[in-house]
Amino acid sequence: MLKSAPAHAFNLEGSGNGKKVIILGAGLAGMTCAYELNKLGYQCKILEARQRTGGRCWSIRNGSTNTEFDKATATANFDAGLYFNAGPSRIPHHHQLTLHYCKELGVPIQVYNNVNENTYYFAEGKGSLSNKKIRTREIHNDVRGYMTEMLAKSIDHGNLDAALSKEDAQKVIEYLMAEGGLDVDKLYKASARRGYIESPGAGNKVGKIADPHKLADIIESGLMDPDFYNVAEYTYELQGTMFQAVGGMDQIAKALEKKVAPILTMGAEVTNITNISDGVKIVYKDALGEHSINGDMCICTLPLPILSNINHNFSSDVSRAIDFIGYMKTGKIGMQFKRRFWEEDEAIYGGITHTNNDLTQIFYPSYDYLDKKGILIGYYNFNEKAERVGDLSYTDREKLALDKGRLIHPQYDKEFERSFSVSWHKTKYNMGGWAVYTNDTRRDHYPALLKPDANVYFAGEHLTYLNAWMAGAFESARSVVASLHGRVTETRVAYPETGTKG
Amino acid sequence: MLKSAPAHAFNLEGSGNGKKVIILGAGLAGMTCAYELNKLGYQCKILEARQRTGGRCWSIRNGSTNTEFDKATATANFDAGLYFNAGPSRIPHHHQLTLHYCKELGVPIQVYNNVNENTYYFAEGKGSLSNKKIRTREIHNDVRGYMTEMLAKSIDHGNLDAALSKEDAQKVIEYLMAEGGLDVDKLYKASARRGYIESPGAGNKVGKIADPHKLADIIESGLMDPDFYNVAEYTYELQGTMFQAVGGMDQIAKALEKKVAPILTMGAEVTNITNISDGVKIVYKDALGEHSINGDMCICTLPLPILSNINHNFSSDVSRAIDFIGYMKTGKIGMQFKRRFWEEDEAIYGGITHTNNDLTQIFYPSYDYLDKKGILIGYYNFNEKAERVGDLSYTDREKLALDKGRLIHPQYDKEFERSFSVSWHKTKYNMGGWAVYTNDTRRDHYPALLKPDANVYFAGEHLTYLNAWMAGAFESARSVVASLHGRVTETRVAYPETGTKG
Repeated sequence: MLKSAPAHAFNLEGSGNGKKVIILGAGLAGMTCAYELNKLGYQCKILEARQRTGGRCWSIRNGSTNTEFDKATATANFDAGLYFNAGPSRIPHHHQLTLHYCKELGVPIQVYNNVNENTYYFAEGKGSLSNKKIRTREIHNDVRGYMTEMLAKSIDHGNLDAALSKEDAQKVIEYLMAEGGLDVDKLYKASARRGYIESPGAGNKVGKIADPHKLADIIESGLMDPDFYNVAEYTYELQGTMFQAVGGMDQIAKALEKKVAPILTMGAEVTNITNISDGVKIVYKDALGEHSINGDMCICTLPLPILSNINHNFSSDVSRAIDFIGYMKTGKIGMQFKRRFWEEDEAIYGGITHTNNDLTQIFYPSYDYLDKKGILIGYYNFNEKAERVGDLSYTDREKLALDKGRLIHPQYDKEFERSFSVSWHKTKYNMGGWAVYTNDTRRDHYPALLKPDANVYFAGEHLTYLNAWMAGAFESARSVVASLHGRVTETRVAYPETGTKG
Repeated sequence: MLKSAPAHAFNLEGSGNGKKVIILGAGLAGMTCAYELNKLGYQCKILEARQRTGGRCWSIRNGSTNTEFDKATATANFDAGLYFNAGPSRIPHHHQLTLHYCKELGVPIQVYNNVNENTYYFAEGKGSLSNKKIRTREIHNDVRGYMTEMLAKSIDHGNLDAALSKEDAQKVIEYLMAEGGLDVDKLYKASARRGYIESPGAGNKVGKIADPHKLADIIESGLMDPDFYNVAEYTYELQGTMFQAVGGMDQIAKALEKKVAPILTMGAEVTNITNISDGVKIVYKDALGEHSINGDMCICTLPLPILSNINHNFSSDVSRAIDFIGYMKTGKIGMQFKRRFWEEDEAIYGGITHTNNDLTQIFYPSYDYLDKKGILIGYYNFNEKAERVGDLSYTDREKLALDKGRLIHPQYDKEFERSFSVSWHKTKYNMGGWAVYTNDTRRDHYPALLKPDANVYFAGEHLTYLNAWMAGAFESARSVVASLHGRVTETRVAYPETGTKG
């Protein structure tokens, strides 16, 4: 019988009757699988290579350690109470399952302030607006003004191909004038939207608005290039409202860890995954040596670049999928400053400064506003920029973040204390940020991992269309739990609709 | 000597030497004046008509009372911990002085989530998109798509009047394609930006996007009318980041109240303000009868509609200004619900739903996300809409909020508990939301109130270009304190630049 699963509550029927499930990886997907299977009467065991849970759901605090494959283990040295989220730092409001788990696990949330018109654009290059910081609001409103002016004129002069009735054309023009802040002549002449050079205030302080930037200057300086498109606001996943866990995103992992602590083995590095006739055999090594355990079934949540180097007897389809699906190169650096100069001096509270250099982005913290000290994320980059920066030593990454960052915030020189950087594609037990599919790998390889390989199921953000998001881990965990449970109880569970009976 | 005043710290020199200043009104302006003058060695006394401080900086909680001039006093009956801000509910990030006082007074702040793409547009009227709720993101992204498509085509076909070089035109087209989410043929064909009708998820849940609304339907349904312009995002004052005080905006007033408690007299309704040869004489009445006190100077922060009905011997210019400067008609209703259905059912966390009916706006709370109960603001309206609704009884206002609100949220029927409404232009001791200037009143009457009338200074948001904002109260308070202190110490203090020496 096909049962429909509710959106958030997860009330599967039937019992797992003590079936033994070995779960590989204590990230969000693995711990959620264990948590949910435990509710259903399964006997689970989680093997985690690290001495911590959470995987990529990880906040760097004083004492946090990370190991990149070509470097000595690094230890963070931040002040108490300060942290940054090395992995996921944002929860979209429509990721209701993530929010459901926050609620179920008692993790308080707060707004993650993704959109901030007071941050900067910084373009290295030529052009009169290059090599200096420009407030985001200036570019947003100037460009919006020029674009609406052009279109309004075009419609006005009957130069439009579109079939607009005269009445509709008039409505569109009225809209454009409001949208762009045009004057009565349908010209963009700057407005308070782009900010003041002298703020309005008491008495005769009426406020003073600067002239707009020239469109040609904006273009020449690269500020209409893809680095500065409004993706941070428009993408479905980044549209407000966004959230974060209060006290660090790792609070979600820690809350799950509490639920699964009795069945969790840390420091257990899996070396072999073998389907055997009546179940699975897992070999792992820890400080004491090599161990072998058997289970009825296994859920493997290891990132594919890690799984790729583990011995297994999976089908050739599965084996190829593991090898061929790509992962994002990405890195972040957390920088502790003596003073929240971005708030005090520049009125920047949260949000993102965008650059076209290797920094790509500077993230200002969305917590402890008005506090004394703070950690900002000095770069958050991807692809070849992340590769280039990841190849540097920790010291040189810090130097890069300081050198490029002080062009925007000269306060760096006086206020900087210390940093900690993570290059995810070089990080042991991860070796990648998140799964990145091409049309080809999604078509040719992804489906192989959606089915269990005999007694081994695969789960994690890489087995969803929610790559990079915690929601992917949660949705995948539920999908696999439903699928596995359906097989055990011999009912078909509709989560997802395509869940196989096994 | 002209001294420049720092942006936030307020370090005036010299002593007030015990000069006696009577401050009328314990709103933010009055209490800030007292707080700052006290630091300088003045002897202040604050007279407040109400039995509470804060004025319009007021959060309605269980037991809060309000008196509208034509109604019996109403008492709020909300659950413990729930509140709504009847007055100011938002702090723009660039109101650094407001944030400075939050810091100085130890009032924690949190993000006020003003922009939320998941709220609704609701247009009453004709057209296929009328009389039903449409997600904000659908209209934003569809309109953005159509506008950029039109302009890209126009440029492509050389129909543009603007002098764009060929290279720049190409750059603009590339920008428009990204900005609007256009396809390779420069056509808007919907995208994930407008949301999914089936969310992406695990396994084969690739997600399904609906067709865009037709531009003609959007226009016909009034969704490009001024009621739905993007003002909530674009206006300088409403651009992210925005804040609120944790636990209610009245926490700012309460923190100030603590500082001035010893010099505060509540329940003191001023009836006469008289400049006398060596100072001022203030007559007020309280429960015990009429009292008269003298001071060296007075700072009057009473809203002009109130001051207009108080006896005084001000100059005719001042008297006319008091009578002629207009105030906003505005009202809000707080509605307590058993369940935060807007979060649970509709994934709306904070932000604003816009309507073209008398509700104008529904504000969802930006605090206690994921909690059980909540208060939303069922309408926040202005001008003739506020007048119409304000003229209703409390019961009929609630009925209106329910009748119009359930068209958007049918959950109202099952989940509603109780309401409390405030009509500011009918509220005793306010009789208006905030000063609203025309070009004429700003030119002809405003200047008269920027100077002291003999020994009486005027302060409040109405004496700034920051009308309606708490920043106006703070900036005006500092301006007047600097001006008054400059007169007493016979130095000229540059706050504001136009501060008179008296």
